[in-house]
Amino acid sequence: MERGVRIFMKMQLYEMGRKAREAARILATASTSQKNKALMAMARALREEKSEILAANAVDMENGRKQGLTAALLDRLLLTEARIEDMAAGVEDVASLPDPIGEVIKMWRRPNGLEIGRMRVPLGVIGIIYESRPNVTADAASLCLKTGNAILLRGGEEAINSNRAIARIIAGAAQNCGIPEGAIQFVDSASREDAIELMRMNEFLDVLIPRGGKGLKEAVQANATVPVIMTGMGNCHTYVDEFADVEMATRIIINAKTQRPSVCNATETLLVHEKIAEKFLPGACAELLQRGVELRGCERTRAIVPGVKPATEQDWETEYLDLILAIRVVNSLEEAISHINRYGTMHTEAIVTKDYDNARRFLAAVDAACVFVNASTRFTDGFQFGFGAEMGISTQKLHARGPMGLEELTSTKFIVFGSGQIRE
Amino acid sequence: MERGVRIFMKMQLYEMGRKAREAARILATASTSQKNKALMAMARALREEKSEILAANAVDMENGRKQGLTAALLDRLLLTEARIEDMAAGVEDVASLPDPIGEVIKMWRRPNGLEIGRMRVPLGVIGIIYESRPNVTADAASLCLKTGNAILLRGGEEAINSNRAIARIIAGAAQNCGIPEGAIQFVDSASREDAIELMRMNEFLDVLIPRGGKGLKEAVQANATVPVIMTGMGNCHTYVDEFADVEMATRIIINAKTQRPSVCNATETLLVHEKIAEKFLPGACAELLQRGVELRGCERTRAIVPGVKPATEQDWETEYLDLILAIRVVNSLEEAISHINRYGTMHTEAIVTKDYDNARRFLAAVDAACVFVNASTRFTDGFQFGFGAEMGISTQKLHARGPMGLEELTSTKFIVFGSGQIRE
Repeated sequence: MERGVRIFMKMQLYEMGRKAREAARILATASTSQKNKALMAMARALREEKSEILAANAVDMENGRKQGLTAALLDRLLLTEARIEDMAAGVEDVASLPDPIGEVIKMWRRPNGLEIGRMRVPLGVIGIIYESRPNVTADAASLCLKTGNAILLRGGEEAINSNRAIARIIAGAAQNCGIPEGAIQFVDSASREDAIELMRMNEFLDVLIPRGGKGLKEAVQANATVPVIMTGMGNCHTYVDEFADVEMATRIIINAKTQRPSVCNATETLLVHEKIAEKFLPGACAELLQRGVELRGCERTRAIVPGVKPATEQDWETEYLDLILAIRVVNSLEEAISHINRYGTMHTEAIVTKDYDNARRFLAAVDAACVFVNASTRFTDGFQFGFGAEMGISTQKLHARGPMGLEELTSTKFIVFGSGQIRE
Repeated sequence: MERGVRIFMKMQLYEMGRKAREAARILATASTSQKNKALMAMARALREEKSEILAANAVDMENGRKQGLTAALLDRLLLTEARIEDMAAGVEDVASLPDPIGEVIKMWRRPNGLEIGRMRVPLGVIGIIYESRPNVTADAASLCLKTGNAILLRGGEEAINSNRAIARIIAGAAQNCGIPEGAIQFVDSASREDAIELMRMNEFLDVLIPRGGKGLKEAVQANATVPVIMTGMGNCHTYVDEFADVEMATRIIINAKTQRPSVCNATETLLVHEKIAEKFLPGACAELLQRGVELRGCERTRAIVPGVKPATEQDWETEYLDLILAIRVVNSLEEAISHINRYGTMHTEAIVTKDYDNARRFLAAVDAACVFVNASTRFTDGFQFGFGAEMGISTQKLHARGPMGLEELTSTKFIVFGSGQIRE
């Protein structure tokens, strides 16, 4: 990019940051009813101006086809009347959730009479860099508004027209309800330089949430100096223990792999204890193959199930996001745990077992955001967990881990009530 | 630094990171009694080997004198038998605190029968870069061990001999109790390059906690790509409201400024409402001057109290950490809040008032980790808050905000108990 344009874009980003910071101060003390009124207006505006959104989306779809996006990616990009209705209903759902801001989580009295409380407050300014699905624009903006945070939205290039239209409509509706201009802002640029600039705006951003693939994750790790919540990479495992119920294990692995293979909580590698492998694998593999799953196994798997392709080191590391499953036979529970802690992305890991001690050992020793006993990894989800919302699934340990609901978009502040106390 | 040496140090740091990661896996499931046994052994070893620590400290003190460190810095650096005893007693105190690891904060049942719990787990590997005071070596190591975290300690150059001795002694004592070698490691280097390397070891560090001055903070903001908890910068304000009790306000500002001026929770700027300025300032300033405080005021302050030096824009921004106080007369509560939100470092802010609405408005609108009504800012401290420990005071909003105790050194993990559930 030409130097002059670069400097202009940088100035524009900083101006957005400054406005967001200013808006955040006002939003921090906005009442719940004011925020809910704005959310309801946003939902209404999405419905009323859907033709504008559909027109913008048609441009993105046309560009996507020209650029040869896969059918799956085109489907993620596509907006229909029904999908816009879902988006609007999602914003209304956020309005109906309890407002976490102002909640005093705990309050206690000290011997000197000071009363100390810990109150939930907004984080401030949240940046989000996301790829593909345009509904994230409305989802993220409504979750941030509900929690009193200002948001800078930076979507992917392929959805830029759809995102711009959605952002303009919801930001306008919010402003009409008295929400400050800087509260919801769209970074209208698909340049990598601007994304990197956003990752380094320490003065203006309290947190950056990247939602996307491996490339985005690596760019953030290499460049970001603002606080970050990493999300979404899921190389998830299901381990079928020596003492598993074979029927349950089969049902779980089929669900975990095939119910929606393109998402982060789908299982990518099946680990099987050697003592149950001959009993479990033939039937499970037959069912998986029948559902169109490509199987890639270790030597021992291939000895039991003919026709399974050989797996390489690369397979243990890969998040396929597709109808492909890696399979490995292990000697012990400990070998399964070691495999998971080595190759996993600390997202979701499951054991299928009837053994009490093995279940406890797995829960304790596996290092992941979510560890399951006897359930499909597909349940890692803010709605399935009962949070009523989801801002992504954190795979880091700081601040938020696992599905993020409204509470994860808050910080706290200590409020201290005294009567003239001084320190001796 | 020569290129060959640089590469060697980098390899050494990565090897330390690898060992820390390995140790963290083991520590994560260590029992509370094993960790406490190691802590008690560490305290014993500090006492038994105090002569080694004193000898190492003598070298640091000698170097410090040669380099012309100020008396205050030399005092921070100095270790005595009594200070080593305090250090050992501090480690024992950590042993006596409840272990947060394994606590299930909340558990609930979903309509499909899944039981979901949120369990406290260690963060993993914590890096700490700290300056001056060598007792931080023992404090930080013991807090991390108690919470099942591995730690990489990187102290300041001026205390390198003391820190090395303390780290060697406590790590040895812990190892004798079965704690893995990688659990407590000392980065034996004072080079800036190594510090920066540490800030970028995303593969091995779950969080970096810098404890030091402005230079360190800026280096971290510019270079760190690992998750960071910023600590300690405190440009704190005390605001004397129109409706303050003058006697209480005087007592509080004297305490907040003079009780220990070198620390982050000391007040640096006094804001005074114009309607109380003439009644409050002359007496308060006289008392402050009498205690050796240099006063720098705005024009209106200087019109009321002769002999106050003029304050510049620079003064509103400065964390003096010294017996200097900036004073500004403001027109309103809102002007005080704006001043604080503009110049403050979001550490600790106090209002002195008898007015109910003004107290509530200040608590709500001031954006800081700790907001006080009618008490000295000096109370922002893990021990004063009743946490029984302190790992620094976070001035960021992500993960931890304000004084950090043991809980702030933990993450959580969702544990999910099923009976074969799959997602429809």
